[in-house]
Amino acid sequence: MNVLIVYAHPEPRSLNGSLKDFSVKRLQEAGHAVQVSDLYAMNWKASLDAADSLAPATGERFDPSRASKHAFENGLQSPDIAAEQAKLKWADAVIFQFPLWWFSMPAIMKGWVERVYAYGFAYGVGEHSDARWGDRYGEGMLAGKRAMLVVTTGGWESHYSPRGINGPIDDVLFPIQHGILYYPGFDVLPPFVVYRTSRIDEEKYLEVRDALGKRLDNLWNTAPIPFRPQNGGDYLIPELTLKDDIAPGREGLSVHVK
Amino acid sequence: MNVLIVYAHPEPRSLNGSLKDFSVKRLQEAGHAVQVSDLYAMNWKASLDAADSLAPATGERFDPSRASKHAFENGLQSPDIAAEQAKLKWADAVIFQFPLWWFSMPAIMKGWVERVYAYGFAYGVGEHSDARWGDRYGEGMLAGKRAMLVVTTGGWESHYSPRGINGPIDDVLFPIQHGILYYPGFDVLPPFVVYRTSRIDEEKYLEVRDALGKRLDNLWNTAPIPFRPQNGGDYLIPELTLKDDIAPGREGLSVHVK
Repeated sequence: MNVLIVYAHPEPRSLNGSLKDFSVKRLQEAGHAVQVSDLYAMNWKASLDAADSLAPATGERFDPSRASKHAFENGLQSPDIAAEQAKLKWADAVIFQFPLWWFSMPAIMKGWVERVYAYGFAYGVGEHSDARWGDRYGEGMLAGKRAMLVVTTGGWESHYSPRGINGPIDDVLFPIQHGILYYPGFDVLPPFVVYRTSRIDEEKYLEVRDALGKRLDNLWNTAPIPFRPQNGGDYLIPELTLKDDIAPGREGLSVHVK
Repeated sequence: MNVLIVYAHPEPRSLNGSLKDFSVKRLQEAGHAVQVSDLYAMNWKASLDAADSLAPATGERFDPSRASKHAFENGLQSPDIAAEQAKLKWADAVIFQFPLWWFSMPAIMKGWVERVYAYGFAYGVGEHSDARWGDRYGEGMLAGKRAMLVVTTGGWESHYSPRGINGPIDDVLFPIQHGILYYPGFDVLPPFVVYRTSRIDEEKYLEVRDALGKRLDNLWNTAPIPFRPQNGGDYLIPELTLKDDIAPGREGLSVHVK
């Protein structure tokens, strides 16, 4: 199978760097083809702007969605964007690996999402009707592919537990796992999270590495998070609220998981 | 009073640009001093890296927290970072205005947070003991200041309602409002959110503008979101989980609001 690792850490000799190198080796040894988008090493342009389209400037005001649609449809995307889209098409599974900075992905990776997720590629796909609200949340161009987060954080596991002060890790990662990965169609595997990174000595590192190795070995037979498909009958259209008889009386992020 | 607007949109002639200009005018007319950090216009460097410190390279591996601490303590921060910290110190209130891209702030603004929020400035502050876990979540260098999000999104309000598919807006914004704003001490006001931006005609625009104007007029007497202070007795230390008798039996993000 083909695996793409989208990776963001500025220091190759970091815990993240070691784990990324380990993942590449482990996957290759299992016979998979691996590509890595090492965003810092690539000096990835983080900020979405008008220069992301090669279309000549018209003096019109820059509308990010409209410009993205035009560039995508007419082969006028910046080559760095088109290259990442090609990697996504090639991949059977995508691993996003990053340190959790301020409760989200690093800016450089957020900018990868904003620029690579073009209109017509990751959103703005599919028809809107009484029965469908576009191909999204379970459908879309990346349907059939798997995605998994590999995340490191300085915080303790209890700080991210169901009543922990940072919020439950599933809720903290919801905007990424549901909003960025499930939205364009990925099957999202449970995340691999490394807590309390400052306390990782050699012994603990080997433990973490082995646990990650097992997750990679099971990439193809791990059950995805059972997010509810948007067009599968659980949601009213176009309100996109859960029907009354689905998770009755409940609210919040967890209601979107079966 | 002094108001800082941290603003991210690539097009001045956008809805966001108009609302930002309106806010500046409204606040100035009310007698406030206003500074704007227009991140796209400033060509803000989004990606945190070793160049953020002016300390000479030693060949050691780059540890973002350690480098940030060293630079902050020794006056070796990149001048663009120090300038933003000075604006934060100057401000009595800070407005963060941005379009919601993929359920979070644009990369350029995330990179502002990552680089400006230095170790010793926004985190790594205060003592750790049996009774305290640093000055954070309600305490910290920015305590006594107010912060408010002004956010635009293409999605409908119902899509962000308590049972809406995108997740309740308060939960979607929790990593920002609680994790980025409350963490270093800000009092966080309820957000001002503009939904379904593609449908905003002239009449609707005037409505939105007036509603935003009222929020700005009431910046100093609007009750903040009552997040629970970390060191106020509601949390076990160092586990940082809510004590059993606080919001008993409940889980998720909303338990951190009184």
